[in-house]
Amino acid sequence: MRMPLWLGARAALAPHAPALRCGSSEWSFAELDRAARRAARALRAHGLRPGDRLAVLLPNGAELVALVHAAPLCGAVLVPLNTRLTARELAFQLRDCRPRLLVHDGGLAVAAKDACAELPDLSRLATPLGDGEARADLPLERELDLGDTAAVVYTSGTSGAPKGAELGHGAFLWSAATAAFAQGAVPGDRWLACLPLFHVGGLAILYRSVLAGAAVTAHERFDPAHVADELDRGGITLVSLVANMLERVLDARGERPAPPGLRCVLLGGGPAPADLLARARGLGFPIATTYGLTETASQVATLPLELARAEVDAVGPALPGHALRIVSPNGVTLPAGQPGEIAVRGPTLMKGYLGRPAETAAALRDGWLFTGDVGALDARGFLCVLDRRSDLIVSGGENVYPAEVESALREHPAVGDAGVAGEPDPRFGRRVAAWIVLRPEARASAPELDAFCRGRIAGYKVPRAFHFVDELPRGPSGKLLRRALGE
Amino acid sequence: MRMPLWLGARAALAPHAPALRCGSSEWSFAELDRAARRAARALRAHGLRPGDRLAVLLPNGAELVALVHAAPLCGAVLVPLNTRLTARELAFQLRDCRPRLLVHDGGLAVAAKDACAELPDLSRLATPLGDGEARADLPLERELDLGDTAAVVYTSGTSGAPKGAELGHGAFLWSAATAAFAQGAVPGDRWLACLPLFHVGGLAILYRSVLAGAAVTAHERFDPAHVADELDRGGITLVSLVANMLERVLDARGERPAPPGLRCVLLGGGPAPADLLARARGLGFPIATTYGLTETASQVATLPLELARAEVDAVGPALPGHALRIVSPNGVTLPAGQPGEIAVRGPTLMKGYLGRPAETAAALRDGWLFTGDVGALDARGFLCVLDRRSDLIVSGGENVYPAEVESALREHPAVGDAGVAGEPDPRFGRRVAAWIVLRPEARASAPELDAFCRGRIAGYKVPRAFHFVDELPRGPSGKLLRRALGE
Repeated sequence: MRMPLWLGARAALAPHAPALRCGSSEWSFAELDRAARRAARALRAHGLRPGDRLAVLLPNGAELVALVHAAPLCGAVLVPLNTRLTARELAFQLRDCRPRLLVHDGGLAVAAKDACAELPDLSRLATPLGDGEARADLPLERELDLGDTAAVVYTSGTSGAPKGAELGHGAFLWSAATAAFAQGAVPGDRWLACLPLFHVGGLAILYRSVLAGAAVTAHERFDPAHVADELDRGGITLVSLVANMLERVLDARGERPAPPGLRCVLLGGGPAPADLLARARGLGFPIATTYGLTETASQVATLPLELARAEVDAVGPALPGHALRIVSPNGVTLPAGQPGEIAVRGPTLMKGYLGRPAETAAALRDGWLFTGDVGALDARGFLCVLDRRSDLIVSGGENVYPAEVESALREHPAVGDAGVAGEPDPRFGRRVAAWIVLRPEARASAPELDAFCRGRIAGYKVPRAFHFVDELPRGPSGKLLRRALGE
Repeated sequence: MRMPLWLGARAALAPHAPALRCGSSEWSFAELDRAARRAARALRAHGLRPGDRLAVLLPNGAELVALVHAAPLCGAVLVPLNTRLTARELAFQLRDCRPRLLVHDGGLAVAAKDACAELPDLSRLATPLGDGEARADLPLERELDLGDTAAVVYTSGTSGAPKGAELGHGAFLWSAATAAFAQGAVPGDRWLACLPLFHVGGLAILYRSVLAGAAVTAHERFDPAHVADELDRGGITLVSLVANMLERVLDARGERPAPPGLRCVLLGGGPAPADLLARARGLGFPIATTYGLTETASQVATLPLELARAEVDAVGPALPGHALRIVSPNGVTLPAGQPGEIAVRGPTLMKGYLGRPAETAAALRDGWLFTGDVGALDARGFLCVLDRRSDLIVSGGENVYPAEVESALREHPAVGDAGVAGEPDPRFGRRVAAWIVLRPEARASAPELDAFCRGRIAGYKVPRAFHFVDELPRGPSGKLLRRALGE
C-alpha cells in the first residue's frame, strides 16, 4: 500500500509545531522536513538510488534524524550502525548489507575508514552534509510503500554472527499506532530519546513522533544528571529507558517526586529489579515495563498505563494487534502459568533477516516469531518474561551474545576454550563474565585478554571478569552449558 | 493479517477503565466485553454463523454498542440500519444485503416487522437479548482478519438506490490510528457520541475508542441542552458534531466559554458557515473541520488541532496515510487552486459496494476513490470542499439524494414530473425542496404530497417546501438541471 511520506504529511499538518530539540537547537516539522530534503539531495548527488542501502554511523543528533527521514525521500533503506562497534564489527555488517553509501561524522571517521578498508567499492560521505551538494533539481520520492523495507537493524543471535532484521515501513507505522493506543499520543507530547537512536527502540521514536506529531528531545549520550535536569525542566511527557538508566536518573534526582507532566516511562531492555520498580513508583514515576525485540520494531507487550504505578512485575498483555503464545520445546502451545518459549505474532514483525533464508525460516514460522526468550502468561494473559534467550546477556540495556565474545576470546593463541555468561551486577543488572581454559603451558592475564578483546568487539561486550578454570561444563553432546558456568 | 479481537485486547489491558456511559449506566471495558460475549452467544444460539451478515436496527445505546462488538465474536458482518428509514426503505436494504438475522428493539418493532414482511427467511430477534439464550458452550471467535469485512454501511448515490459500502476491519483500524495521530488519544479521553451510531462517523467512534482505550458517552438522540449539560459537567475531551448541531449547542449554552478539557470538536457532515465557525472559536471551542465519507470509514482530511482555533475555512491536508488529488472531468490531476473532483487514496477505503461490481468499478479506480465531490487544494495542500456531489443535499448532517426523493414523488398519480434540490435553511444548513409539475387536470396539495412521501421515505428526506411549476429546467439531452431549479 502506497502513501505519502510521513514527515512531509506532518509538515503539511503542523508546519510550526516543534519536531526536534538537540542541545540548544530546535526544529519545527517544516524545518526538519527541509533538513531531510537537503540531506536527501546530497545523498542523491553522491549516487544513492532507489532500492540502495544507506548506512549511517552517527551519534544521536539532528544529522542522524534528518538522515532517517532522508532515506525514504531517496527510496533507500536505512542501516543504522551501532557507534560502539569496533572497525572489525562494522566491516562485518557493511559486508553483510552492502550499502551504496556510508555516512559518518568526523568523530567516527577512523572507525569508518578502518571498517571500509576492505570495501573499496563503498562510497563514504563525511558529514556535515554540505549545502553546496544539495542540488535542487534531483528528484526525490514523495511516497513510500508499506511493504518496502524501511530499515535493516542488526541484532546478534545464538550463532554470534549479527543478522540484519529487515523492518518494513508498515512495521514502524503499526508500531506507532500501537504506541498511540497504549501510551497515548496527544498534541504537546515530547519524547525524551536518551537511548541510542541506532537501536530499534530509539529509531521507533523517530518514526512514531512524526506520525503522531510529537516532539523529540534527543540527547547525544545518556547522562543521568542531564536527564534529571531535563525532567525537572518540564515538557517531557514520555521517555524510554532501561533499568540501569532509570536507577542512575533516580540517583541523580534524589528524593524529588516525579515531574507532574510525565505520562509514561517505557522501561525496556530486560527484566527490571523489583526494588527499583518500587522505588521509582514510590516517587510517582509511571513505569510501563515493556517487552520488545529488534525483530518486532520495538514493543509488543507493555504494562498498561493504568497499572504503571501499581506493584505489577509482569510486562502486561499483548498490545492491540499483537498476539503472544508460550510454546513448549516440541511446539505445543502451553496454558497459563507454564513457562516456555515466547512466540509473537503481529503487524510489526520483521520481513526476515537480510540474505539469511535459513535463519529467517527458523525464526518466522507460520507468521509467528519464535523469540528464544522464556516466559509465561498469567491468568489475565499478562506476559512475565522469565529469562531472555539463555545465551543473551542484557547489560545496561545492550544485548551481548556470549557466542560472539567466546569466538573473539578463542582467537587468542593462549586460549584453549572459553565460555561467556552473565553475572549479577549492581549497576548494569548483568555483567559479562568469561571462563577461560588456557592451552597447556600457555599464559594470559586478565588485562591482556581485555586488551585483546577491545580490538575485536565493542567495549560493552568485553568481559568485566575473567575466571581461569580447568575445564568448562559441557553436556553429553559436548554443548557448552552456559548456565552452569558460574556454579 | 489476523489479530486478536480489539475489545478483548483492551479488556485485558485495562479491564477497569471506563468504556461506555449511556444515561446513568456505566460499563468498564471488562463489563463491555462480557456484554458483547453474552450478546454474541445469544446471536449464535439464534443461528448466526461466521460469514453471515447481522443487521441491527437500534437507537444509540449499550445494546447497539454490545452488538457492534458481538459481530466479530461471531465472525459476522455488521449491517447497522438507519432507524429513521421507512419500512419500505429498510426492506430494500435488507433484500440487498440478505442478513441471517435482524436485531431490533421494541420501539422499532413495527418498522422491522413491516420491512420483513416480504423477507420470510429472515430471522428477527427483538432485544433485549435474553440472558437465558446465552448458552455458554457456543464457540466464539477470538481473532479477526484485517482483510475481512467488518461492516456494510449503506450510502445513497446519484442513482438514488442505496449501496452498501463494505468496510474491512483494516479500514476501521487505520481510521482509529489516523484519529490518534490527528486528534490525539490519551488515557482519560472520552468521546461524546450524540450522532447516530449507525452512521460511519458514529460507528468509527466505537471501534476507535476500544482500540485507543477511550471512554464513550452515547446519547440516545441529539438534544442540544443535554449536550450543553454534558460539556459543562466536564470529562468530555472529544466530540463529533455537524454544523447545525454545533449551532444548537451554542444556542443552548449561551455565551459560556468552551469547557477547558475539550480538546477537539470534529466538525463534519458538509461545509460549515464561516460565522458559525467564528462564533464557536470566539468562545474557545477547538473546531477541527473534517471531510470524510462512508466509503472511507470516516475522516480523510481534517484541520490540524494547531489550527482549530484559527480562522481557517479549509478542512486541512490529507491525514497521515491518505493522499488527495483533484481531478478534471477528463481524468487529469489538477494543480493547486483549480477546482475539480476530489479523489482519495488511503488505507481506510472500502472494499467496494456489496454486490455491485459496476458501481464499485466506477468509484474505485487504480486504488483511488472518486468521490463525486468538488474541491480544490490550496498552496499548502489543504483541501477546500467547494460542493458536495452536485446532487447531494446535506441537511442537518443527514445526506439526502434528490433522485431518491424524486422517484418517491413520481409515484404519486398526480405528479407528472418532479425535481428536488437543496435550499438554504437557517437551522439545518440546507433543506430539501421539491419542484413539481402536475399532470394535466390533476391536483395535489403540498400537505397531500408530504403525507404521500412519509409513507415511502424517511422523514428527513421529505421535502420541506413544494414549488408547483409548469416545467423543470432540463438540458439538451433532457437531463434535469437541479442547480437551475431555484432560479
